Amino acid sequence: MRRDHLRTALATVCLSGTLEDKLVAASDAGFDGVEIFEPDLVAAPMRPGDVRVRCADLGLSVDLYQPFRDLDSNDPDRFAANLRRAERKFDVMAELGADTVLVCSSVSPDAVTDDDRLAEQLATLAERAGRRGMRIAYEALAWGAHVNTYEHSWDVVARADHPALGLCLDSFHILSRGSDPAPIAEIPGEKLFFLQLADAPHLSMDVLQWSRHHRLFPGQGAFDLPAFLRPVLAAGYAGPLSLEVFNDVFRQADPVPTAVDARRSLLALAEATALADAAPTGAADAAPTGAAGAGAALAGVAPTGAGLGAARRAVVVDPVAAPAPPLAGHAFVELTAEPTEADQLAEVLDSLGFVRTGRHRTKPVERWEQGRARVLINAGSRGGAAALGALAVESADPPAAARRAQRLLAPLLPRERGPAEADLAAVGAPDGTPLFFCRTGASGPGGWSSDFVPTGETAGDGFGITGIDHVGLSEPFDHFDEAALFYRSVLGLTPVSAGEFAAPFGLIRGRALTDDARTVRLALTVARLRRGDWAPAVADPQYVAFATDDVLATARAARAAGAPLLAIPDNYYDDLGSRLELPPDRLAAYRELGVLHTVDHPDGGVYLQVGTELLGGRLFLLLVQRVDGYDGYGWADAPVRMAAHRRNRLARATG
Amino acid sequence: MRRDHLRTALATVCLSGTLEDKLVAASDAGFDGVEIFEPDLVAAPMRPGDVRVRCADLGLSVDLYQPFRDLDSNDPDRFAANLRRAERKFDVMAELGADTVLVCSSVSPDAVTDDDRLAEQLATLAERAGRRGMRIAYEALAWGAHVNTYEHSWDVVARADHPALGLCLDSFHILSRGSDPAPIAEIPGEKLFFLQLADAPHLSMDVLQWSRHHRLFPGQGAFDLPAFLRPVLAAGYAGPLSLEVFNDVFRQADPVPTAVDARRSLLALAEATALADAAPTGAADAAPTGAAGAGAALAGVAPTGAGLGAARRAVVVDPVAAPAPPLAGHAFVELTAEPTEADQLAEVLDSLGFVRTGRHRTKPVERWEQGRARVLINAGSRGGAAALGALAVESADPPAAARRAQRLLAPLLPRERGPAEADLAAVGAPDGTPLFFCRTGASGPGGWSSDFVPTGETAGDGFGITGIDHVGLSEPFDHFDEAALFYRSVLGLTPVSAGEFAAPFGLIRGRALTDDARTVRLALTVARLRRGDWAPAVADPQYVAFATDDVLATARAARAAGAPLLAIPDNYYDDLGSRLELPPDRLAAYRELGVLHTVDHPDGGVYLQVGTELLGGRLFLLLVQRVDGYDGYGWADAPVRMAAHRRNRLARATG
Repeated sequence: MRRDHLRTALATVCLSGTLEDKLVAASDAGFDGVEIFEPDLVAAPMRPGDVRVRCADLGLSVDLYQPFRDLDSNDPDRFAANLRRAERKFDVMAELGADTVLVCSSVSPDAVTDDDRLAEQLATLAERAGRRGMRIAYEALAWGAHVNTYEHSWDVVARADHPALGLCLDSFHILSRGSDPAPIAEIPGEKLFFLQLADAPHLSMDVLQWSRHHRLFPGQGAFDLPAFLRPVLAAGYAGPLSLEVFNDVFRQADPVPTAVDARRSLLALAEATALADAAPTGAADAAPTGAAGAGAALAGVAPTGAGLGAARRAVVVDPVAAPAPPLAGHAFVELTAEPTEADQLAEVLDSLGFVRTGRHRTKPVERWEQGRARVLINAGSRGGAAALGALAVESADPPAAARRAQRLLAPLLPRERGPAEADLAAVGAPDGTPLFFCRTGASGPGGWSSDFVPTGETAGDGFGITGIDHVGLSEPFDHFDEAALFYRSVLGLTPVSAGEFAAPFGLIRGRALTDDARTVRLALTVARLRRGDWAPAVADPQYVAFATDDVLATARAARAAGAPLLAIPDNYYDDLGSRLELPPDRLAAYRELGVLHTVDHPDGGVYLQVGTELLGGRLFLLLVQRVDGYDGYGWADAPVRMAAHRRNRLARATG
Repeated sequence: MRRDHLRTALATVCLSGTLEDKLVAASDAGFDGVEIFEPDLVAAPMRPGDVRVRCADLGLSVDLYQPFRDLDSNDPDRFAANLRRAERKFDVMAELGADTVLVCSSVSPDAVTDDDRLAEQLATLAERAGRRGMRIAYEALAWGAHVNTYEHSWDVVARADHPALGLCLDSFHILSRGSDPAPIAEIPGEKLFFLQLADAPHLSMDVLQWSRHHRLFPGQGAFDLPAFLRPVLAAGYAGPLSLEVFNDVFRQADPVPTAVDARRSLLALAEATALADAAPTGAADAAPTGAAGAGAALAGVAPTGAGLGAARRAVVVDPVAAPAPPLAGHAFVELTAEPTEADQLAEVLDSLGFVRTGRHRTKPVERWEQGRARVLINAGSRGGAAALGALAVESADPPAAARRAQRLLAPLLPRERGPAEADLAAVGAPDGTPLFFCRTGASGPGGWSSDFVPTGETAGDGFGITGIDHVGLSEPFDHFDEAALFYRSVLGLTPVSAGEFAAPFGLIRGRALTDDARTVRLALTVARLRRGDWAPAVADPQYVAFATDDVLATARAARAAGAPLLAIPDNYYDDLGSRLELPPDRLAAYRELGVLHTVDHPDGGVYLQVGTELLGGRLFLLLVQRVDGYDGYGWADAPVRMAAHRRNRLARATG
């Protein structure tokens, strides 16, 4: 039996707001169920029965009630009190319509340390739960006093051997300890009562703090979630894929987009798991075959331990799971401006060696080209400074790419937002930027570019710009991890660089993504803390980086043509000269042209960049040359560039 | 010789902005000197000579150039290259007018691990520095590859035995490792070339990350800085007290108030060190004597290793250092509102059992009283919701307290801002809230209250409110640590509670301060991340907590008088009943009156609180009862109250 639906659930603790806000957001994002986090219920005016009704109205099942803490005790009186407490929670669950409660391993000093006694206490609780048609999902907290590995929790559950007692597996607790998830495949599927998924960055800190503040949705962190999920599904787990993510940013952000981000992460995870699963058969490259194999491989089994509450639905992945169609580069970048500023942008492109090759038939849009770099200037912007208006990538199969993006919850944008009349599908990135899918090599007649009337001028080699190296996107604070996952999943990119640098107005996190062939590169940045009033707009810049094989020649030609190249302080070159043995004439050329010379590590090549001055509140253009295989983004020198742009802005403000 | 001036310096890395912004802020705050952080200079358009001139214009000396990294090397070629690099930096220092450079212990894999060879390499560098009249201050990074304790760095410096080589001591690197600072007193003072001070909270994380993101100014964290500073001064250290604080918030905040906060921290540290130093003589309680003793104890000695660059000035503390005059409680709290809202506030105070005892002679201000709780309602607010307008404490010596506050850089507020005509001194807290010093017991005739015309009504026991328990202040994001230090130093309070709780709109940090007798308590809170658009104003509430010995009786009387008590969900009481064995009638009374019952730990007593509904955008009043010595602030239940206020606000918006 094949189902086309992946059951997904979300713990209410993932989201900001009150319980009512959270349920609406989870429903809007298409989740099938929720875990009710007890503090959310305790603070809610809705009685548990009202919550059940509300969830039903919203199409949500209540898949888990959590957490029940510190059940077991060496003190018989305390254990008895804990059982009474549990009965009250069973009352709540009965009203809620929840049949499974998460019991986490004790962190109390009186935690039972004899495994047989612990199993006995868990079985006692399970017996009481079972009588009421409920189940206990026992979870090992990574910082549990006695039980803190999934292997240990399974040992205790197996000892207890009670049909109403099973495991809750949480990827964070397991992967944060470096445990191998592969043996999970050996656990009987009917004893896997619940699965909580969370990713996280690698951090060297107290695991409790790491867990409580820095969890991420799958695909946003450093954990190998597909490798975790595979053995769980292989074991026969049949419950929902549920997210339990404690994250300081998500707890403070609008819950509606966060819930969409959350569900996208599960869809992408299921797809990645299916594809990875199919990969060993050699089918991963052939999308339909690979997907079918994956769908079959991931079809869950019905629980054999049924009869405990509602029947479990099988876990299946989207049967059309397929890799993103291959990319072949940036088709174009659109810059938007008011008419006067658009003229200035055109002048700058001209001074960088670009040629105006077309004018749109009906819109105030011009097409400029040099090498394979294509830039549209859209003079139809009303108000606001010049800015990055849209991204466009060349895709081997634009319709498939757009359908896939929609399946990954990317909003399809209405046609009128597109810069071209051709049938271009565009979806909205998390910050609202349109992202177009264009057919590979279709920038000529018949493709997206055919809506432009040729000017008669043709783009030649110009000043040596060969194409778009990457686009630099400063993301809104609440949407950084969301954006990284969006581009990763929707475009099929791979995260290649993550870093942090100290800029003049505070620390900045960076994350870059690219396709394997490095034809599409995106460099995302965000302030480590949301900015207040002090930082100027230029603290969060946007830019288009153009590739050249000889940045000195390109910059020199641009300078001669009047390009507004950004001046870099002499102090930078004094320091550079003290750090590296550079030929004096090269250093002099750098100093003259404002070249930043970045070396991330001795064998990692060199990155040379020359920026323009600001072309809007926070927009600039960049010339970059990658030497000896440099694969980063020059973040070490970004603070120097940013300080120069700050002066640039001050000069504009007073000039 | 007595000097009345403490030499203070600030590393530019402490502040946000470009080098120019930082120098101005440091000068405005009254610093005597700066450490120039190399990346700030490298990104600056000012040449080093321009920086020297600019600093001189601003009254700043350039006390240190930093850091020079990874000097030593097992590879002779690399060491030679590092010496060449150092010579270029000496060139920069000569232009800057800096005679001391910080060389930190190497973190490189090729760091020299033979101490004699390391000493030899340091001496080689020092010889070159000495020839140019410069000095090398060698610092052990806590994460240095080979040298990572101050003891080890001193051992190497002693081996090198070169007059131009000494130590830089950094309190973070020393205290973060748990090293004992006492033996520093045995190091010859002339070998202590520089002192960098930083505090930090206790965090269980990688020390490099801890250092780079979470340092604080002295008095804001958990380190015992007076105990660190004493042996340094005892050794004869004669340079400035300099701050090197890497902090994510400070790096993003307006540098002007941050620099003031920084300098205040040094003034308070010097005072605390002097007082602590004087304490064993029994003089700490007698301010003038104690201060004189302290000043003498801390008077630094002139460097015996002079001749290396500019002469060092002696370190002395403010000779009038004295403890804050004792407090005797909150004199009053002022609430401000527009006239209509002021009438509503008056109604609420009336319904809580307060009596209007006076009207101001000339201003639209009323005095309300119950027990020792005094509230002013100021109807002169123009625009904005009802809010906390001012705090006032009873001080044994208001003029001395105000002078002391000014010495600690608190701005004296113009008289017209005061609610009373009496000669009340007020200073501005970091968020701008006026803070008044009133004479203890002077609320009657002749004191601050004498500007009020008695209404003829007298305050009795009312409904059992005995006084102001505490004031809850939600601080602006950039000013939380600053506010904590401000109240701590200016009022002479002690931090007693620090915590964090998960509120509906994100995590909140809390910090409480009190005088030893618990007569003045302040509970400061702040969102862990700066809020965006999603969170409502009520996410950051202000409140006045009134003490009662029987919160049930007080709340019942208030309820009967029509007080708008905040409704707490039944779910809360179901949960409370499951957790604690409470008599059914007590639980029923809690449920009826909206009492929150908080237990932080089994032996810590009980906190009972009943809130009012919102009286403005984020203002409410609270009735609290402390049972069995409870000494916290009920943070565990704050999220429930906050969710209830959110509903309250929604109801007001739609009602």
